[in-house]
Amino acid sequence: MKTSTKNRILEAGAEIIHLKGFYHTGIQEILSAAAVPKGSFYNYFKNKDDFGLQLIDYFVEYYTHLSRNILEDGTIPPLERIRRLLEWFIEFFKSKDYAYGCPIGNLAQEMGDLSPAFRKKLKMALGSIVDIHSRLLAKAQREGELSQSLDVREAARFLISSWHGALVHMKAVKGPEPLENHIRFIFDHVLRP
Amino acid sequence: MKTSTKNRILEAGAEIIHLKGFYHTGIQEILSAAAVPKGSFYNYFKNKDDFGLQLIDYFVEYYTHLSRNILEDGTIPPLERIRRLLEWFIEFFKSKDYAYGCPIGNLAQEMGDLSPAFRKKLKMALGSIVDIHSRLLAKAQREGELSQSLDVREAARFLISSWHGALVHMKAVKGPEPLENHIRFIFDHVLRP
Repeated sequence: MKTSTKNRILEAGAEIIHLKGFYHTGIQEILSAAAVPKGSFYNYFKNKDDFGLQLIDYFVEYYTHLSRNILEDGTIPPLERIRRLLEWFIEFFKSKDYAYGCPIGNLAQEMGDLSPAFRKKLKMALGSIVDIHSRLLAKAQREGELSQSLDVREAARFLISSWHGALVHMKAVKGPEPLENHIRFIFDHVLRP
Repeated sequence: MKTSTKNRILEAGAEIIHLKGFYHTGIQEILSAAAVPKGSFYNYFKNKDDFGLQLIDYFVEYYTHLSRNILEDGTIPPLERIRRLLEWFIEFFKSKDYAYGCPIGNLAQEMGDLSPAFRKKLKMALGSIVDIHSRLLAKAQREGELSQSLDVREAARFLISSWHGALVHMKAVKGPEPLENHIRFIFDHVLRP
């Protein structure tokens, strides 16, 4: 099936590029991991850059799907859902020996200065992730969990950008402390009634 | 002079690696920019990795020197010095078309997962930068500018890690908004009396 071959290439590329970065990863390495012959890559992608751009969409869809179970759980107050998602990620990174980080943040770091096409796509991807959290913060505000004076869009931007910084520090210290520190400051100082 | 040749190599490497990253930069490219013959590289550095590790020290010294004028200005209250330094950086990045970011954050992102030697060195470098700000926050606390209940070391860690995330987002949006948003949230919500 065509779709499934394409997805296998995206899945394999996502895994390797998430760890090693875009430039450090070769197409052949991805195809070997996906057990797909080289020729078929070009049935789905014009070139490596086109693959990278489609991979960003893949990462956003993956994140949206992954976070939905927690963020849309109506049995839990909105702010608690955000806290649980962040704590879920701490467990995830623990299982990965505190490597990887966020693939969107990684690509923004690596490719933001080098490719206008990547930059544009990454800006949209970050916007989508901010949107998801902004909507939930607006709900928290309506329900009285958050100060009415807080600009929820700006707060969501700060939540996500500071999380990306915590992930950078996590890679350097190889431990959960920067993520735990992020959660503490976000909930003790920013996301308050 | 031996020292000056070594410094020219470090300076040229700092500029190129700051923009392009470590793996994307070749030794020959650095030596051409420094106008230094290839052979002499090995008088100062064992190999490219050794150069990269020494470059991290160079970046920390550079940052310490750069920030000292503002952070040690006794005519200004401690918190205001931190705000002025961050605002100075916004002007700096404006002049660089919002590229580059922090070289230590960039290397943590790029090399943290790939080389234990880099990771260890980067952890120390981040620790040094946190120390500089932690001492100044402690001073702000003694002078009554900051809540006594704030853990200044944790606050300094959050200040620096969230700044690194704002720099990642700056590269994706090619504008000052993530840095301005960082300053707003840090001073309105975290570094308060």
